[in-house]
Amino acid sequence: MILRNTWYVACTPSEIADKPLGRRICGEAMVFYRDGDGRVAALEDFCPHRGAPLSLGKVVDGKLVCGYHGLEMGCDGKTIAMPGQRVRGFSPIRAFAVEERHGFIWVWPGEAGKADRDAIPDLPWANHPEWAYGGGLYHINCDYRLMVDNLMDLTHETYVHASSIGQSEIDETPCVTRTEGHEVITSRFMNGIEAPPFWKMALRGNKLPDDGLVDRWQVCHFTPPSHVMIEVGVALAGNGGYEAPADKKASSIVVDFITPESETSIWYFWGMARHFQPHDEALTASIQEGQGKIFSEDLEMLERQQKNLLAWPGRKLLSLNIDAGGVQSRRVIERLFAEEQAATTEGAGA
Amino acid sequence: MILRNTWYVACTPSEIADKPLGRRICGEAMVFYRDGDGRVAALEDFCPHRGAPLSLGKVVDGKLVCGYHGLEMGCDGKTIAMPGQRVRGFSPIRAFAVEERHGFIWVWPGEAGKADRDAIPDLPWANHPEWAYGGGLYHINCDYRLMVDNLMDLTHETYVHASSIGQSEIDETPCVTRTEGHEVITSRFMNGIEAPPFWKMALRGNKLPDDGLVDRWQVCHFTPPSHVMIEVGVALAGNGGYEAPADKKASSIVVDFITPESETSIWYFWGMARHFQPHDEALTASIQEGQGKIFSEDLEMLERQQKNLLAWPGRKLLSLNIDAGGVQSRRVIERLFAEEQAATTEGAGA
Amino acid sequence: MILRNTWYVACTPSEIADKPLGRRICGEAMVFYRDGDGRVAALEDFCPHRGAPLSLGKVVDGKLVCGYHGLEMGCDGKTIAMPGQRVRGFSPIRAFAVEERHGFIWVWPGEAGKADRDAIPDLPWANHPEWAYGGGLYHINCDYRLMVDNLMDLTHETYVHASSIGQSEIDETPCVTRTEGHEVITSRFMNGIEAPPFWKMALRGNKLPDDGLVDRWQVCHFTPPSHVMIEVGVALAGNGGYEAPADKKASSIVVDFITPESETSIWYFWGMARHFQPHDEALTASIQEGQGKIFSEDLEMLERQQKNLLAWPGRKLLSLNIDAGGVQSRRVIERLFAEEQAATTEGAGA
Repeated sequence: MILRNTWYVACTPSEIADKPLGRRICGEAMVFYRDGDGRVAALEDFCPHRGAPLSLGKVVDGKLVCGYHGLEMGCDGKTIAMPGQRVRGFSPIRAFAVEERHGFIWVWPGEAGKADRDAIPDLPWANHPEWAYGGGLYHINCDYRLMVDNLMDLTHETYVHASSIGQSEIDETPCVTRTEGHEVITSRFMNGIEAPPFWKMALRGNKLPDDGLVDRWQVCHFTPPSHVMIEVGVALAGNGGYEAPADKKASSIVVDFITPESETSIWYFWGMARHFQPHDEALTASIQEGQGKIFSEDLEMLERQQKNLLAWPGRKLLSLNIDAGGVQSRRVIERLFAEEQAATTEGAGA
Repeated sequence: MILRNTWYVACTPSEIADKPLGRRICGEAMVFYRDGDGRVAALEDFCPHRGAPLSLGKVVDGKLVCGYHGLEMGCDGKTIAMPGQRVRGFSPIRAFAVEERHGFIWVWPGEAGKADRDAIPDLPWANHPEWAYGGGLYHINCDYRLMVDNLMDLTHETYVHASSIGQSEIDETPCVTRTEGHEVITSRFMNGIEAPPFWKMALRGNKLPDDGLVDRWQVCHFTPPSHVMIEVGVALAGNGGYEAPADKKASSIVVDFITPESETSIWYFWGMARHFQPHDEALTASIQEGQGKIFSEDLEMLERQQKNLLAWPGRKLLSLNIDAGGVQSRRVIERLFAEEQAATTEGAGA
Repeated sequence: MILRNTWYVACTPSEIADKPLGRRICGEAMVFYRDGDGRVAALEDFCPHRGAPLSLGKVVDGKLVCGYHGLEMGCDGKTIAMPGQRVRGFSPIRAFAVEERHGFIWVWPGEAGKADRDAIPDLPWANHPEWAYGGGLYHINCDYRLMVDNLMDLTHETYVHASSIGQSEIDETPCVTRTEGHEVITSRFMNGIEAPPFWKMALRGNKLPDDGLVDRWQVCHFTPPSHVMIEVGVALAGNGGYEAPADKKASSIVVDFITPESETSIWYFWGMARHFQPHDEALTASIQEGQGKIFSEDLEMLERQQKNLLAWPGRKLLSLNIDAGGVQSRRVIERLFAEEQAATTEGAGA
């Protein structure tokens, strides 16, 4: 169950800096590159001549040139030229709606004509002088919804990330979950606790003492198709927690763009948008490294969980209060998927 | 054709010394660990919460704690506790009958209620002051019955293990095979021959001359489901061979517990129980290393044989006199399998 | 669609110099070795005793001895002997028609009785004092016809082999393609051009200047089942090109024997027969190394093209004038395949 008429993060600008990038997204083999005006294009990764992947070619004067026999492809999926050939009758390949925004390349795997560029989520922290961003990309063999579950239930931090961001107070503090339209929000506030190692590092990074008690918060926001933004942070205890003034806290947004590759594999774009000391590049690098290590701890768990679910297909899982975030997110996905299917059927009937 | 209501060696104590062990046995994903009393438990490797493998968790105060969200599982398959949750209604997972005995962990993959602890084979050499034991574990992609065939027809030593235990006299000396109840015994006695390199080493290990003629014996015992114990040894020629006094021979039991992982893969627990110089630990280590090397020579042959049989599924193999041990062992397995199937049907009908 | 009643290159003499070789050809697992008279034999790689691959055995006194239990196999597929056994009743295994000629081992995967030894192609350059040969073997996961396409349309050189043999004049010069009986010939003549790096090296190898203009030619010959011989070379411009005297040119034949392993994988025997300086072994080695590097550039393209074609099975490819060589070759294959099928049906009906 993968939504198609929606925007996914496909790649980052650095991935297409000097050559085309082949990537399968929502089951579609795509090639991404920049055209002559520097605009990003996304096409089927299939040369209409003999089926070679266009991503093995290169971009010459803004045109994607097949690396096998030199067919020149336009960013609309129509062949521009080919040595010694008339190309007018060549069948076009599919062009996907694609957009560069907020430091990411976004793709709409469904019908390009339906792509609504206003529907790309607003990311207030992106390219904002008060914020710094660092992140990375992991490939994980699991259903994208298992990663949504993971991020919408942070009690796993206590077990999977015990040495960095986990602490027993996460387990002990109930979360509150609600759905607002298509958004699911689950929040947890822990006051007067000791900061775990990662957050002590962040406090020091914001030139704050790391040995006192803190108020810690986690506010997870799921939005379709599978983006999870988590407001996280710690404030020196007694200064208002989440609402504390900037010089009393270290606050960030954990950024998670989960892009299905197939029904059981994902491209996981993770990162942290930091709302303190935005110019401290060493801090950005250090947080990126720490987060990369922490998030890599989820990989084996998710892949092995996926294998188990495939091996026991009939078994019903539990949906506890801590699972409410994932459960409500799946409901939103299911509702939108049903709408998408209905629209497709209507379209076909019209 | 895998027997289920029977005992298999699942693992060794050292494999569960400091963390749970996940292992698939007879197609069942199991997790093995020690509970608070040090008793071994075996459960489905599937957390009832969200399907994570419990083997990625850890044992805390004798309870298996899921490494994803902290569910505490009891050794009966019932959830004991989970942070912030009432667990009374949680579905239990399957608990397998399991028993630690003779230095191995045994599991009964069939219905736990039918498990007969008296049916675990007696191993007179285990934990006996006159015997020393060393062994190891290999994973091999073959039907467990191909390994039974291998061990019940030692003429392969001449070809597969030519430089260590093979010698042409094995080929030249007919074997005698009989079935006694569920046991199949095939024996070969070679008198007045030169000992091959492995046995010369063993003679020196027992402080006997290695340059004279010896009487050598091989008595293979198959017992269901797939255990093969092989009495092996050499005696200085003319001292009664198999019956020679202890100070005239070097005698051992080759220990083979073959545990199906799936229809076409096995966990192969191999070892040697030595009935001489039991306190010589250097000798134990040296025999273990030599045996490990020799037994590794079978791996490629068995895996390639399995591939061939899958590629030529209709082809009938030969059953020569040397194959009688394997053939009779398969008959025992087939008879017991039919009984098991009949009992299951009856049980279902009752 | 693989022709079976025809000759393929199976291996080279050096591959069976000191032990049997197991190789799957046209879906058949075969073992190749030399018998007591030094003649090559090809059998099913399956011991009639217990199904072990005979290629894991060894050749003793010209007999193939199974490495598992010592069965001695004759080159007609009949068991010769086995320790302690009467073998008269053993089922024979299949023996394939096989022939050593022109420095290669040829096999006929179809019915051995139909094998026509006169149908092995004549290779005038093989073992000829005026010619030198060097080559190699690659395993590639693609339909053999994709490699035929590749070799019958050399415009790919401009893109895949841009730094060695590619040049824009290949694209700019139309090719002429014709079918003569079962042979397809596609030729291209480029006059008064600069030689690309590989051919400059060849000119120097033939003690000719490399800085003048040359006439270059490529004449590709496809013959069934899947052999492609390409006459290639450069002559100092204005000396008659292809027809120039030997001391004004560097000419060779690119040798390509494409042997299907399965429907989607091949053994690719590539090489170059050189018609100049045949005794310069350093030149042979240097050309072999250069060609090996150039031909390795095709591998990823072919394997990824194959994957694309499997992923988009319904998509129709283009057949441009540059593709005529591959298209006509496929027509020859299709015609012969239909004849082969018809002959089989007739045979069955008789």
